[in-house]
Amino acid sequence: MKTLTVELGDRSYPIFIGQGLMGDAELVKPYVKGQQVLIVTNTTVAPLYLEKCKQAFADFNVQSVVLPDGEEYKNLETLNLVFDELIGKRFDRSCTLIALGGGVIGDMTGFAAAAFQRGVNFIQMPTTLLSQVDSSVGGKTGVNHPLGKNMIGAFHQPECVVIDTETLNTLEDRQLSAGLAEVIKYGLIQDPEFFEWLEANIEKLLAREPEALAYAIERSCQDKADIVAKDEKEAGLRALFNLGHTFGHAIEAGMGYGKWLHGEGVSAGSMQAVYMSKLLGNLTQADETRIQALFERAKLPILPPSVAEMSNDKFLGLMAGDKKVQAGTIRLVLLKSIGQAYVTGDYPQELLEKTLTDWR
Amino acid sequence: MKTLTVELGDRSYPIFIGQGLMGDAELVKPYVKGQQVLIVTNTTVAPLYLEKCKQAFADFNVQSVVLPDGEEYKNLETLNLVFDELIGKRFDRSCTLIALGGGVIGDMTGFAAAAFQRGVNFIQMPTTLLSQVDSSVGGKTGVNHPLGKNMIGAFHQPECVVIDTETLNTLEDRQLSAGLAEVIKYGLIQDPEFFEWLEANIEKLLAREPEALAYAIERSCQDKADIVAKDEKEAGLRALFNLGHTFGHAIEAGMGYGKWLHGEGVSAGSMQAVYMSKLLGNLTQADETRIQALFERAKLPILPPSVAEMSNDKFLGLMAGDKKVQAGTIRLVLLKSIGQAYVTGDYPQELLEKTLTDWR
Repeated sequence: MKTLTVELGDRSYPIFIGQGLMGDAELVKPYVKGQQVLIVTNTTVAPLYLEKCKQAFADFNVQSVVLPDGEEYKNLETLNLVFDELIGKRFDRSCTLIALGGGVIGDMTGFAAAAFQRGVNFIQMPTTLLSQVDSSVGGKTGVNHPLGKNMIGAFHQPECVVIDTETLNTLEDRQLSAGLAEVIKYGLIQDPEFFEWLEANIEKLLAREPEALAYAIERSCQDKADIVAKDEKEAGLRALFNLGHTFGHAIEAGMGYGKWLHGEGVSAGSMQAVYMSKLLGNLTQADETRIQALFERAKLPILPPSVAEMSNDKFLGLMAGDKKVQAGTIRLVLLKSIGQAYVTGDYPQELLEKTLTDWR
Repeated sequence: MKTLTVELGDRSYPIFIGQGLMGDAELVKPYVKGQQVLIVTNTTVAPLYLEKCKQAFADFNVQSVVLPDGEEYKNLETLNLVFDELIGKRFDRSCTLIALGGGVIGDMTGFAAAAFQRGVNFIQMPTTLLSQVDSSVGGKTGVNHPLGKNMIGAFHQPECVVIDTETLNTLEDRQLSAGLAEVIKYGLIQDPEFFEWLEANIEKLLAREPEALAYAIERSCQDKADIVAKDEKEAGLRALFNLGHTFGHAIEAGMGYGKWLHGEGVSAGSMQAVYMSKLLGNLTQADETRIQALFERAKLPILPPSVAEMSNDKFLGLMAGDKKVQAGTIRLVLLKSIGQAYVTGDYPQELLEKTLTDWR
């Protein structure tokens, strides 16, 4: 087992990474405050892992709630099912919520924990690659609004993150690839050495070789933890994690939540950012080809929906509604080079429009 | 104008108290960060004060949303109307929300500000006595769940609180009395001198004499600010503010939100706590009579609903669902004497039941 720490003063917490951690009662015990535990999971994960997860909390009064699976259910209405359970079963302020599932479950459970009685504890037990390398770390929680992703939420850090890499054995191929989009992102924005490692090892990851996966998860979590420690509430640096996300969120919202997986939007969106970075003279054609090749080898889409499916105007409208917007300017994460990203609202508008037109 | 400060380190903020402050653009300008301002108010307050309030933000891009009026609308569904407006009008992270109204508007606007894009700024402009002396100060925000009050929310401090005492001229008598319940509460829990002042001046407050009202508001806010500064997130001391609230919340929920005003529940609930404190030997019959007389002079109910309307079992069930419960014990705020409250879960259960039976 590997242990990393997210350094946030008195809100610091560990990330545990290893095989078969889920049923480990001794591991999680120190992170449960009271006696009441609610496991929040979904219809896909419950048949696979709910019983095993419950064993880890057998010493406590453990209850569970099973939500419908999918980004299209990440809203206030579904969140209310968690509150109904908590309040109906008389959970108090000393309770602990467990997020057992992917990024949607993690974000919703975290927000439920942030808002229930104005804040209770929670533990992340991510079961998808995407949530293991990204959303379970850093305390961003929330739900979607029909007009924009994660518009309603809170910064609320977990007590610990338990990453059982065995859960990846039951993950669909498409979900595995979606997770790789966020892994590749870390290489692109800040870790050129890791990007090269991924170029050498992407097929091992697709083949689910345990050692390769464990390394990719650990390195991704370390990259993320380093930046979160410096910028918990996204005043600056942390915005780099949004490479491909302003484009990608527009794709997800524009096509209807659940059609495109988040990681798929990030992949196509990152390539849009790469293309625009090339137009700006930051990246060479060789860089673009190299990045595209890695996403393609990871079995990820590199093009957004067609103009017929999503016009430039619709794209721009949805991007302008994204959280990264300040005072009307669409702020984008672009690349200076492979391994170095920057945030900017200072670019010729026609280059953004050219990107939306050309890169289809 | 009087200025108090809630001392919370880098989240400290001023409370301005005075006549005619609402239209004062210079006063609020330093507390608005970006260009976008959304005033959140309700159908009762909008015709009276929305235009005046808008003038104070004339230098900004100011929008407004008018919610239905009443505790029965303090829920996630109504909250979503605020999010619809914010997202539909493309408000960004640098926006400022203005809570223009009573406690319900303040709590909902504050929670909307806490959750929108994981946290934006807001300003409290309370227009009822109750919200001026209590809910606008201290950063508690939230909405109700059908099974319990304020079950879903956040601690989120405003940028400033603007108390225009002129707004009390348009307040219904019943609402004015409800506000006095919270004013009397400060005397009971920590300020015996203020309790005596209230005994001498309660009729002046009911007659809305400006000087008396300004003094009562200032002293209440100061009492509250002192404790909030010491215990922002209710780890201990702050729980004293809940005198009468565990009983009172049960009354509000049990009778259906909106039937009893919050202050009315606090008044009857405080008398239940007083009666129980007498049973415990803390208060004398003379104390009880004296406290009862002050609530009665303030035109507040001193008895909860009848047993026929709300059985002891229903009362206990709703009290057990309240936030103050930890590990099954109903924690209560009781009085040691007039001017000294304490929180306890350690009392004979039969005394609580006797209180519910006798004090009707």
